[in-house]
Amino acid sequence: MRILTAGESHGECLVSIIEGFPKGMVLEESFINQELKRRASGKGRGARMSIESDTVEIVSGLRNKITLGSPIAMLVRNKDARIFSQSKDNLAPLSWPRPAHADLAGALKYNERDVRNILERSSARETVSRVCVGAVCKQLLSHFNITIAGFTAKLGPVESVKKPANVSEIKAWTKNSPLNCIDKAKEKLMLKEIEKVQKAKDSLGGVVEVWIEGVCPGLGSFMHFDKRLDGRLAQSLVSIPSVKGVEFGLGFEYAEKRGSVSHDPIYYSKARGFYHKSNNSGGIEGGISTGEPIIIKIAAKPIPTLGVPLDSVNLLTKEKGKAVLERADTCVVSSLAVIAESMCAITIAEAIFEKFGYDLLSEIKTNWRAYLKKCGSI
Amino acid sequence: MRILTAGESHGECLVSIIEGFPKGMVLEESFINQELKRRASGKGRGARMSIESDTVEIVSGLRNKITLGSPIAMLVRNKDARIFSQSKDNLAPLSWPRPAHADLAGALKYNERDVRNILERSSARETVSRVCVGAVCKQLLSHFNITIAGFTAKLGPVESVKKPANVSEIKAWTKNSPLNCIDKAKEKLMLKEIEKVQKAKDSLGGVVEVWIEGVCPGLGSFMHFDKRLDGRLAQSLVSIPSVKGVEFGLGFEYAEKRGSVSHDPIYYSKARGFYHKSNNSGGIEGGISTGEPIIIKIAAKPIPTLGVPLDSVNLLTKEKGKAVLERADTCVVSSLAVIAESMCAITIAEAIFEKFGYDLLSEIKTNWRAYLKKCGSI
Amino acid sequence: MRILTAGESHGECLVSIIEGFPKGMVLEESFINQELKRRASGKGRGARMSIESDTVEIVSGLRNKITLGSPIAMLVRNKDARIFSQSKDNLAPLSWPRPAHADLAGALKYNERDVRNILERSSARETVSRVCVGAVCKQLLSHFNITIAGFTAKLGPVESVKKPANVSEIKAWTKNSPLNCIDKAKEKLMLKEIEKVQKAKDSLGGVVEVWIEGVCPGLGSFMHFDKRLDGRLAQSLVSIPSVKGVEFGLGFEYAEKRGSVSHDPIYYSKARGFYHKSNNSGGIEGGISTGEPIIIKIAAKPIPTLGVPLDSVNLLTKEKGKAVLERADTCVVSSLAVIAESMCAITIAEAIFEKFGYDLLSEIKTNWRAYLKKCGSI
Amino acid sequence: MRILTAGESHGECLVSIIEGFPKGMVLEESFINQELKRRASGKGRGARMSIESDTVEIVSGLRNKITLGSPIAMLVRNKDARIFSQSKDNLAPLSWPRPAHADLAGALKYNERDVRNILERSSARETVSRVCVGAVCKQLLSHFNITIAGFTAKLGPVESVKKPANVSEIKAWTKNSPLNCIDKAKEKLMLKEIEKVQKAKDSLGGVVEVWIEGVCPGLGSFMHFDKRLDGRLAQSLVSIPSVKGVEFGLGFEYAEKRGSVSHDPIYYSKARGFYHKSNNSGGIEGGISTGEPIIIKIAAKPIPTLGVPLDSVNLLTKEKGKAVLERADTCVVSSLAVIAESMCAITIAEAIFEKFGYDLLSEIKTNWRAYLKKCGSI
Repeated sequence: MRILTAGESHGECLVSIIEGFPKGMVLEESFINQELKRRASGKGRGARMSIESDTVEIVSGLRNKITLGSPIAMLVRNKDARIFSQSKDNLAPLSWPRPAHADLAGALKYNERDVRNILERSSARETVSRVCVGAVCKQLLSHFNITIAGFTAKLGPVESVKKPANVSEIKAWTKNSPLNCIDKAKEKLMLKEIEKVQKAKDSLGGVVEVWIEGVCPGLGSFMHFDKRLDGRLAQSLVSIPSVKGVEFGLGFEYAEKRGSVSHDPIYYSKARGFYHKSNNSGGIEGGISTGEPIIIKIAAKPIPTLGVPLDSVNLLTKEKGKAVLERADTCVVSSLAVIAESMCAITIAEAIFEKFGYDLLSEIKTNWRAYLKKCGSI
Repeated sequence: MRILTAGESHGECLVSIIEGFPKGMVLEESFINQELKRRASGKGRGARMSIESDTVEIVSGLRNKITLGSPIAMLVRNKDARIFSQSKDNLAPLSWPRPAHADLAGALKYNERDVRNILERSSARETVSRVCVGAVCKQLLSHFNITIAGFTAKLGPVESVKKPANVSEIKAWTKNSPLNCIDKAKEKLMLKEIEKVQKAKDSLGGVVEVWIEGVCPGLGSFMHFDKRLDGRLAQSLVSIPSVKGVEFGLGFEYAEKRGSVSHDPIYYSKARGFYHKSNNSGGIEGGISTGEPIIIKIAAKPIPTLGVPLDSVNLLTKEKGKAVLERADTCVVSSLAVIAESMCAITIAEAIFEKFGYDLLSEIKTNWRAYLKKCGSI
Repeated sequence: MRILTAGESHGECLVSIIEGFPKGMVLEESFINQELKRRASGKGRGARMSIESDTVEIVSGLRNKITLGSPIAMLVRNKDARIFSQSKDNLAPLSWPRPAHADLAGALKYNERDVRNILERSSARETVSRVCVGAVCKQLLSHFNITIAGFTAKLGPVESVKKPANVSEIKAWTKNSPLNCIDKAKEKLMLKEIEKVQKAKDSLGGVVEVWIEGVCPGLGSFMHFDKRLDGRLAQSLVSIPSVKGVEFGLGFEYAEKRGSVSHDPIYYSKARGFYHKSNNSGGIEGGISTGEPIIIKIAAKPIPTLGVPLDSVNLLTKEKGKAVLERADTCVVSSLAVIAESMCAITIAEAIFEKFGYDLLSEIKTNWRAYLKKCGSI
Repeated sequence: MRILTAGESHGECLVSIIEGFPKGMVLEESFINQELKRRASGKGRGARMSIESDTVEIVSGLRNKITLGSPIAMLVRNKDARIFSQSKDNLAPLSWPRPAHADLAGALKYNERDVRNILERSSARETVSRVCVGAVCKQLLSHFNITIAGFTAKLGPVESVKKPANVSEIKAWTKNSPLNCIDKAKEKLMLKEIEKVQKAKDSLGGVVEVWIEGVCPGLGSFMHFDKRLDGRLAQSLVSIPSVKGVEFGLGFEYAEKRGSVSHDPIYYSKARGFYHKSNNSGGIEGGISTGEPIIIKIAAKPIPTLGVPLDSVNLLTKEKGKAVLERADTCVVSSLAVIAESMCAITIAEAIFEKFGYDLLSEIKTNWRAYLKKCGSI
């Protein structure tokens, strides 16, 4: 599967193409729109989200809702379009790079003095495309009983205490949560924290936890380093704007625990086949899926754009001053889960296609079922 | 640059090919051997390391020590070779998968009952090839004033307190350190911890911190999600066996700090050009290098193989028992740094070639110098 | 540079994304539309071309006509849209596969009984996207003084006798030619041939010759087999629907000539640097460009869809009958040149980026000029 | 499947790694050696072939002759090794580039004055690695009943008249043929031609025809242009040194025939399923295999190095003179078949893995059989 996305933050359109997606799957546009809505909502989001109501338009790859096996192209129009391909816009140049953005390094990379020409693509608005693609992949994964859900595990200093047992619980508990949190008590504190920070014109980061359930054992590979599933998930997730860390299972906690208490012993029963009683590994060992839920945590830094801007330097005059004030969110951790789920869905779908082919959904399922049967009967 | 590695843990040979490496660089075999030695040493390593004395043999891509621009092939012979391509070995089948290894999931993936056919490639001995390739890339990077060094930041529960200011300090302070640690006081405690754990036939994990210095601004790209430098470094590092987490700059700490105190304001002086006084971002913003040192932490789980083996199940009989006892290390955190450095060197070299071409070293340097000049004069 | 195209023959939209295209180039939509017009015109084209008037819509990657370095997404709407993503069409199933199309093998590949689900993407309408992408690459190449032109060298049994000396001649001579031919006398015969064949409800193939001029020496590489420029051009060109053969320089004629009379001796003059007096090699030796014009011939089979359909078999009933009659052209050789030029432009642009980087047009040109200088002074 | 090859013509070793090859296949070293022998033999080969007796050494990826699923590394030592990685050779610089070689363009590309640093990798000795990899892939393909054979269809002006009906005939008829020819009468003339040309210190090219039999319908894809099987085969074949043209089925002859007589009508019988009575398409339609034999012709230019050297220019002094005289063959067309077969085997194996997965041979066969069953029952 190959994916390309395109589109500027205030350009005409966000576009994505998925190439190598199987034929024969019913694809619901409405589900993609739901996911786009999840991405846009959540307490702490800024003004832009009240302007846009992102809606996907699938313009190829489908006939009567069913995938043709041909590339799937999806468009999401920007309502707040301000830069155009063929007609002159009248936007003033931005020459004060904002700290913690791509602004300065991007300006150097491209010998650019108008930071707008950098930020339009480095902006996280690009993740709209990822959510579109992810929503297509999630529909695919549902045919293999794979479900994915993420939640806000930490928002600023407030940490969720409740622990989910599975994806269903996460989905049930986060329903109607303004912060995509599973812990009602902690959520109240988180909301207060956001209000405090909004008043201070400051911003907040946090931690999101994602669960991927139903992945059969053996996806990914240890045969070559760049095929390891955890490495590929790590790239997918760290490539999300603001993400500065990723952990699988115990992650950094592993450092403090001895092997005897941190590894997951192996058991067997007729009903379950091989299984583990614990899942400290987070569902991946030796670079391949174990069959247990894949559990990942990612850390997001606070939103870079601040109401009280930080020190900056003018690109043209080199004079000292303050970063430009672009409209922004206070906290996007609640939206981060859906983007992280999307990236996971893409990576797992790729791993499925590698092992079982990708021409025709029914064919892939036949191959997958034959494999599952052998897994049980080893 | 394309890289393929090959070789089993007890096979005849570890092989790697680097394709797309520039012409015209003096390549020192001796430096590769030094790096292999660094990988093999350190307190806590097991018996295998006293058998092998890894030495590289470069069999293509060079003439009189100078790269030809053609693929570079490198061999490292296994002294402890036990499995062979064309002649029958007499190794007994292993049917007790070891927890925390690829053994069980690998056996399921490949419908395999002899775990040896899995572990020979999933073994971390494969990282010998990565160190070879990394050592070639480090020599390339030195032409661009890029240096890389890693150290043991945490070993089990013992954390290094000392903080380095740059790569030179890390190199100086870890010299002659048995644990690749920069903090002598803490190192003593770490050594005690290893002894304790060795007695208990248990194992330890830890945290390694890697610094990459001298990277010009603008490597990597935010133009497409899979080109972001942090994502690519994350994949490179998480693909190392045992690594379960990765952080850039403040990493997970970011979650607790507000934007106003965690972002790095921008300054300018004639002498330094644009710069930051702090480096919380760890040298990457918006998916591209900022010009500040890239600082990464990785978490390693404890060695899976334990002297007192964990519960397992026989693949053939399904009877309950204990994992097979393969010879193993107690702690490899001290060696992890050189592998992590190698993976970073590979990823940064790729980013250099993307921006400046890869045909001829002198040509790349010309292109790079022209770029640096513009960076300063923006 | 990565390219994805999407879109069905009678779907809503043809879409393409170019990722990895440099920043800082003025991109003229009007030129793309001209190229689309060239593709659609020519004697022998069928009814579809009178319905469509393909016009590109660039929806990302540009600001005020200038490339941003971000992915460029382009749309071309189908006027004759008949299959839709979310609403039911009422097209009758096609169960008679047409010989010489992907119909039968495609139906087997996808276990499909309605051939429309195959032909919608296997149709040559997909080449609209390639022409869009090619037109972008041609604009890039013009900055490196590279020009490309193709012409109808043979149409059915009628062969052009005139030989061009360069791209300018081809462009001048084919202007206003209804068959994109450089030989007025032969063109008359070709036109007669088309009329004859149209009456007979039959179809015609032919040969197109493409010249690429101004390519500096040393693009492509012999360092690995899949980097050879001729191999890559061969793939690009044979991937065009109907193309069944490709030749570089003398091509198949080489077989009959001895080395002493077929190879191009090397000369030098102060004014020209190194040069050849002949160009039998077609501008590529050892997998890299020589600096002489690249000259390629491609053979196209006759249009598969015939007014008097060939034998076929019903996919459902297995009864013998005739292939379904889809609207089609008689001869597309005149349009083939623009598609072939497009594929060449894409492949050469990729080779440029490989050698000189791809971030910023001005930077690439600086690197390229430094290289040209050295080429002269070797 | 990823493949990297390495090695200079007179370096220490030719190396190749195949990554992504399935587990569970018996791999016979002896078959690889047979193929290497076929490559080295044939009337018209020069002195080098009497020095080398290429023998493969498989150093990874196998245990007891069976593939492990891990990368397969293969070495072939050069007996005539003259350039070394770490020790100084004493070869005089070559500054007279040979026409029709990569010498001149390579020297410009790499700003090089000693042509030896170019020709060592541009030399066709590199095809030893391709034959090794191809021989591995052929063994894989035999499990899918796919066989491949090529023969000399034309040598200089002498054309083979006999036409084979299938791969078995080609194999039987070329056995013991000194020129890999299927037409004994014509072969005599070819041998005379070689003698004549050898006396004249000149060289010869020719045409090779390759048949690939047993390919199931539906390999490759028309869903994206770069997945078309004919395009990929074209790249594979044109990437072979000396190859200047490629044709599928009727190839350039198509231009002269109308559609009604050149396309292959479709038939059906219970015993054969869908089939064609003719195979003008050469087994590929719409970019995918039809199930009929794939038939390809490639044209090779005469060997560039001539006993009576052509005009050249000294790279250092720019004085006019003659090309340097490197030891060379008169005609390699007889050996070309085995290289072409190898490249086809690689490309077809890749297409198999794409459609059916690549983890485990038995699993791939299960998936393939399920597909074949559906193909018959459509």
